Formats: sequence, structure tokens, C-alpha cells
Amino acid sequence: MIERIVPAGETAGPPTSSAAAGTRLDPWLGAYAQRTHGMRASEIRALFAVANRPEVVSLAGGMPYLDGLPLDVLSDVASRVVSQRGLQALQYGSGQGDVTLREQILDVMRLEGIDAHPDDVVVTTGSQQALDLVTRIFIDPGDVVVAEAPSYVGALGVFRAYQADVVHVPIDEHGLVPAALEETLASLAATGRRVKFLYTVPNFHNPAGVSLSTERRPAVLAIARRYGVLVLEDNPYGLLGFEGEPRPAIRSMDDEGVLYLGSFSKTFAPGYRVGWVVAPHAVREKLVLASESAILCPSSASQIAISTYLSTCDWQGQIKSYRELYRERRDATISALAEHLPEASWNVPDGGFYVWVKLPDGLDSKDMLPRAVTARVAYVPGTAFYYDGGGASHMRLSYCFPTPERIREGVRRLASVVAGERELVELFGTTSSIPDSVVDAPGPDVA
Amino acid sequence: MIERIVPAGETAGPPTSSAAAGTRLDPWLGAYAQRTHGMRASEIRALFAVANRPEVVSLAGGMPYLDGLPLDVLSDVASRVVSQRGLQALQYGSGQGDVTLREQILDVMRLEGIDAHPDDVVVTTGSQQALDLVTRIFIDPGDVVVAEAPSYVGALGVFRAYQADVVHVPIDEHGLVPAALEETLASLAATGRRVKFLYTVPNFHNPAGVSLSTERRPAVLAIARRYGVLVLEDNPYGLLGFEGEPRPAIRSMDDEGVLYLGSFSKTFAPGYRVGWVVAPHAVREKLVLASESAILCPSSASQIAISTYLSTCDWQGQIKSYRELYRERRDATISALAEHLPEASWNVPDGGFYVWVKLPDGLDSKDMLPRAVTARVAYVPGTAFYYDGGGASHMRLSYCFPTPERIREGVRRLASVVAGERELVELFGTTSSIPDSVVDAPGPDVA
Repeated sequence: MIERIVPAGETAGPPTSSAAAGTRLDPWLGAYAQRTHGMRASEIRALFAVANRPEVVSLAGGMPYLDGLPLDVLSDVASRVVSQRGLQALQYGSGQGDVTLREQILDVMRLEGIDAHPDDVVVTTGSQQALDLVTRIFIDPGDVVVAEAPSYVGALGVFRAYQADVVHVPIDEHGLVPAALEETLASLAATGRRVKFLYTVPNFHNPAGVSLSTERRPAVLAIARRYGVLVLEDNPYGLLGFEGEPRPAIRSMDDEGVLYLGSFSKTFAPGYRVGWVVAPHAVREKLVLASESAILCPSSASQIAISTYLSTCDWQGQIKSYRELYRERRDATISALAEHLPEASWNVPDGGFYVWVKLPDGLDSKDMLPRAVTARVAYVPGTAFYYDGGGASHMRLSYCFPTPERIREGVRRLASVVAGERELVELFGTTSSIPDSVVDAPGPDVA
Repeated sequence: MIERIVPAGETAGPPTSSAAAGTRLDPWLGAYAQRTHGMRASEIRALFAVANRPEVVSLAGGMPYLDGLPLDVLSDVASRVVSQRGLQALQYGSGQGDVTLREQILDVMRLEGIDAHPDDVVVTTGSQQALDLVTRIFIDPGDVVVAEAPSYVGALGVFRAYQADVVHVPIDEHGLVPAALEETLASLAATGRRVKFLYTVPNFHNPAGVSLSTERRPAVLAIARRYGVLVLEDNPYGLLGFEGEPRPAIRSMDDEGVLYLGSFSKTFAPGYRVGWVVAPHAVREKLVLASESAILCPSSASQIAISTYLSTCDWQGQIKSYRELYRERRDATISALAEHLPEASWNVPDGGFYVWVKLPDGLDSKDMLPRAVTARVAYVPGTAFYYDGGGASHMRLSYCFPTPERIREGVRRLASVVAGERELVELFGTTSSIPDSVVDAPGPDVA
């Protein structure tokens, strides 16, 4: 989980070399590709080992709450997938994905105003694979991706894996700030940097919780067009709004300049790993080739399970019940913050999974994490969501998985940790004496 | 499916540029990464659209024959996966894969003499994803992969996608020729080329059908070690031998210098997309990070389905029945070749899915393909399995999917096509007047 430290200048020999024999050194260290040296465990990942213990209230993960799913009905769906369509479900399928499922995906996207053709859709192994494929076909080392500050940690990881540079653009309570985007693209153009795409989560942003206002969407699109920059619209949460109708997708306003990523992981269940990307014709061809190279084809069993679920179950009713569930948890989070952490500040998301909390001045969310875990509460420090080391003043609280009661208990614990940190800051002026490495360690025994 | 031809020097503008508006040109053509320019549809892929028509006898695809699977039992397995373990099966899981499944994979590998630890195993979305991840972490553009001549087309595609150079090493009826491997590695070392790994399918080779003899295995390993080259052992077919016991895996002889790829796609069913890679500790850590970046985690639903199948069904009995099924089809293929195509030559595989056929002198398998499809039989031309354009004198016949009767009919049709080609050659001295592009086209209407 933790990158082992290897003496500088250590080079690989064949596995029989005396340097490697009987040691924990990696005999293949000198053989890795350049891109591999940038791979490292994310803060979220290092957390999982600790935060999954039952005594810890985890406000860290983005796992949807599945207890409300009708398992008896879904068990019947799973059974029929094999008994009625087994020879297809158990076989290889098309690299682009099952055509019936692609047609059904159009119905899902129509709720956000998207008008597309089944040929435009490529089914992927979760929308994470779509992120990987898009980055793979567009990014050469050193190319620039422009992304919100903060941005989804898993996207930043993909961009890093392909050796992109990420340039952040600020957001406010209405999402990405058009003037700041314009300024960033102009300044990158002036220095001759090659910007390949703008990565944005326009709805119920991960981690910031905000949404790009309907008014700003055409403006963002127009700026991207003017600079010849593709828009990568990542939209796992768009149907999980707590009020009113879904906002129109950016893709609904432009079918040539936008790549749209969707997913069933948050609106249904992540265990099947089914997401998708909608792309202009020529780009879609490249994505299919890239996906065939990466996995041959997405799982037929998973696709037919999702397809059968969509055609035989009340999937819109399920989304509605998720919305109510998550709204209640959002309310529990916000009221607990108001009661226990009034010295912090936060947004009030109107959908999705996340509240983005700004700590009182002088506190560092990454430094504080080991003490929080000791106090049996976990979150993700803001630094995970910045490419450039920013974000230490913030933390992401996920309210999707714990019950409202657990959320309130978690925020209470967090408040006591923050109070302790503030005392430290008042006494010593800093909390940063604790080495960073503790944060990535397996963590203290909190049993 | 076919790469559109775009005028040389065409560059991308923003999607609103007049050059792009209303045309079929790709407005993002100038934005692709270097690696993307090398992506192209494989010959196998272009074939699928035609060869899947029911009137065509397809000896082209590598799809396993699933009609013998007990769908009623598997339907019950699928049902229980959701009813009894639904909250886990429908949720995100570990990036490395389910630990119970990883333990069960050890039982599968023990049949080929592999002694490993569950920590050494990374579950992947089919072993194609394992190929992608290994190549991703090791290959910089221009690095060399040494591979058998011929080699699995899907592996060559991955190596191409990461801009590797592939250098082929000849095989004979006992598999990879050690002296040729030594000579190739020595010559690459002399020219200063960086060889990252040796890619080999040691059992029932795709497409050549041969196996690396047990005697040669330590020799191949010793040569790779001597040159500091990792061995990438790809073994989807190892348990599908028609006679005797499985050969010991190369991995069973060395746990530091070999990456081993396994799969349930051929011994059970490909629709779940579950494969795996076994790697030394430090390499395994990189593979997990790379996989998390690529897909977050493999499908929990698929993994638990396979795990439940392994723990509650007679999976070894299923493999035994597959072996009998495929042996019968191998026999049908060989006897039909002997009867109808005595002027060709071929190997007699003792396991797996493929016969590698050498055409009579002067014939070109790629040129001949459109005429074969018109005669309602499909195969894969040998050129698909070479990085350097070789292989035109050979074709791959897959006997895995069609019934013995269909196989005999297919070989009869093929023989008549070959006879026609030989007449052409005798008359004109060549068959290459037919443009290559026809091979990649959707094909004539054969209805």
C-alpha cells in the first residue's frame, strides 16, 4: 500500500543478481515505464483499510447505500439473465457494448436533455474506465488537462498515470467560474501549452458538492469551443438531485465538442461495473479500439443484468427513493455541522453525496486525519483533490453510506478532534509536527 | 470499423471551424495522443460482422462453446449471489480483487504446479486487462517486447497501443526455440535495445496450437534470467489438454522472474470477464495501482459469481467435459483437412482451440479471405498474428465453437476456395490483385 523507499540510484538487475536475492528490494525497479514512477496510493485508498472497521464512522468513502435495493427482485433478475439469456450473458460480446443496453442508456440520458444515437455510446467497466480510455486516446506526456479546483481524486489519478499536467480553475457556489476558465485558457495559449480537454463534474460535484448553474453551461461551452478544447463532462450524480428537475447536460447543448460520461454505480449499483461514454463519431471509434485493447469487451453478464433491471424494474422509482434517502442524510450532516462545528464553513449541496467543509484557520485536514481516525471518524483530506498540493484547509464529508444517526455521531467526534487541534494551534501555532507518513500508515489500533 | 482516410496534414480546429462543420471529418483529429495513431481495427474484429451470420461457418473466432454449461445450476448460482451476498456483490470491492476468489484461484493454479499466496494475485477484467496493465507499467515507447512468431493478436494490439516494438522469435513443434531466443536477446543487447519482457503462450498456443515442451521450460527461463528479461506467461488454455496431465507452468519454476496470466474465460465462461495476474510483490503493488486507475475495481458481482461457482459446482468436471468436447472438434478438423485439403499442412494440437494451417505455395490467406467469406467460411489470416506483416502463408482455424458437422462443412468450403485460388495462381502467378481494403470491408452479401 505504501511505496517502498529505495535508495536513489538503485537500478534493476536480473532477478538472480545478488543485490536482489533475499531482500525486499524490487528486482524489476529499473524496468518500469516512466509513467509508473508517478503511480502512488491515493489518500482515499490508504484510508480504506482503517475506515472500514465497524467502530469507525466513515465519512470518507463514496460507496452508495444499497440496503434499500429490492434484493429479492434483483436475485430474480440475476437468475433470469442466466436461465433465459445465458448463452449470450456468459459469452464474449461486442467491444462497444450490448446494443439493447445502449438504447436503454439513451432513455436514461434523455432525462437530462441528451439526444443521442445508440452508435454514439460505448459501454465501459464503470465510468472510471471511460476516464481511462478518453485520457489514453488524447493525452501525450506533458499535455494539459484543465480541471476544477478541487477535482475528483480518481480522475486526477488517471491524468497523472498518463503524465498529463493538470491546471486547476476555481469554482464558486455556481460551479466553474467562466471568467477564470477564460483567463486560464488564454494564459495557457499564450505560453504555447497544449490543452487537450476540460474535465468537469457539473452536477453535485465530487468533492465540492456544488453544481454548474444552468446559465453558466453555455458560457463554459463557448469558451472551450473558442480555444478548441474538448469538454469532458463526468456526470455520475446528475439524477440524484434533491429538488426540482435535473439540469440539462452540457452534452445536450453540443454533440461534437463534448464527451459525456455516465454510470449506473450511483443511481443503481456499482458492483456490476457498468458505465458509459458518449462521443462524436470519430472519437467513439477510437474509444472502442482502445477499450478492445484494454479489456476485449465489457462483461455481457453485467450488461444484461443492468438491461433486464431497466426493462423489468421501476428504475426511476429506485432513483427517487435514493434521492429521498440521500436528502435525509444531507440534512443530518448539515444540521450536525451547524450544531457541533459552527467554527467551520460548508456548502449545502442540493444533490449527490458530498459536503465540502472548510476548517477553521490554521488547521490542516491531512495533519489532523490520524487523530480523527483515533477518535473513530474518517474523512478525505482536501489535498486528495488537488493536483498541486492545495486543499489542506478543506475536507470532504460523504454522507451517502452511514445512517443519519451515525452521521451525527461522526460529526460529533469530528468536532471534538477539531477542538483539540485548535488548542494545539493556539498553544504552538501549528499542527504540522506530525510527519506526513503517519497519514499513509495503517493507522493506530482504534478497537 | 475502417479508419477513415483524412488528407495528410489535416489538423484539428475547434468543432465550430468551417473545415469540420457538416463534414464527416474528425474535428479532433489533431488532438489525439501519439499512441492513438497506431490504433487500428484488427483483422479479427473486422471479420466479426460477417462471420457471425448464421450461414457462414466461422472458424475465425475464439469463442468457447457454452451450450454444454448447466444453465439451470448457474442460474441458481446467479440468484444466490444476489439474494445471499447482494450487499457485497452489488457494491464496490477491493482493487486487487475478492480475497476468497484469490484463494480459490490458487487451487486452480495448483493443477499446473504453481505455489503462490493470495496476496500475489490481482483479479482483472479478463486476462486481456492483465495484459494491458503489465504493458502499462513496463513499456515506454520504443521498448522491445520479444514474442513468439506468431503471437496472440490481442497481445500484439496491446503492445502496439503502448508503442512497443515487438521482435518475433521462431517456434517449432515443441514451442519457442531456446537457441533462437538466445540469439535474439543477444543481438538486441548488442544493439543496446531495452527488452522489457518475453511474451509467451506456452500451452496450446494461440494461434499456432503447439506447446512449449516441459524440457524447454527451464531453458527458456534461464535465458530470460540471464538477459534480465521478465517472462510474461499467458496461459488461458493450459487446463484444456486432450492427453495426460497439465504441463508445469513456467511460473512454477520461478516466482520472481515470471508474471503469470490466467483466465476463467476458456475453462468456464468469458461473459463475467474474470482473469488474473500473479506477480512478485513489488510488481503486484504497481499492478493494483494501475488497475485502480483503469477501472477502480473488478466487478464484485462477477467475482462472487465465479467464486460461488467454484465452491458449489464441479468445476473440474466441467473442464473435463470441455476437454472431451474440444478433442472431438479437433479430430473433426484434422480429419476434414486430411480429406479435403491434403495439399496444405498443419499441426495436430493436443489441447486448446486452434489449428495453424500452412497454405499451398503461392497462396495468400489475407487475399483469399473475401472469397472464403463469399463461399460462407471464415478464418483468421496469419498476418493478424505477426507484428511485421508476416504470416500470409498461414491461417488460423478455430474449432472451439462450431459443431463437428459444421467444421467438416467449413473445411469442405475452404478446400473449394483454395482450389479456386490455386487455379488463379497457375493462370496469373499471383492472387494479390485484389486490394487489401476489401478484406476490411463489411464483405459481400453472402445471404
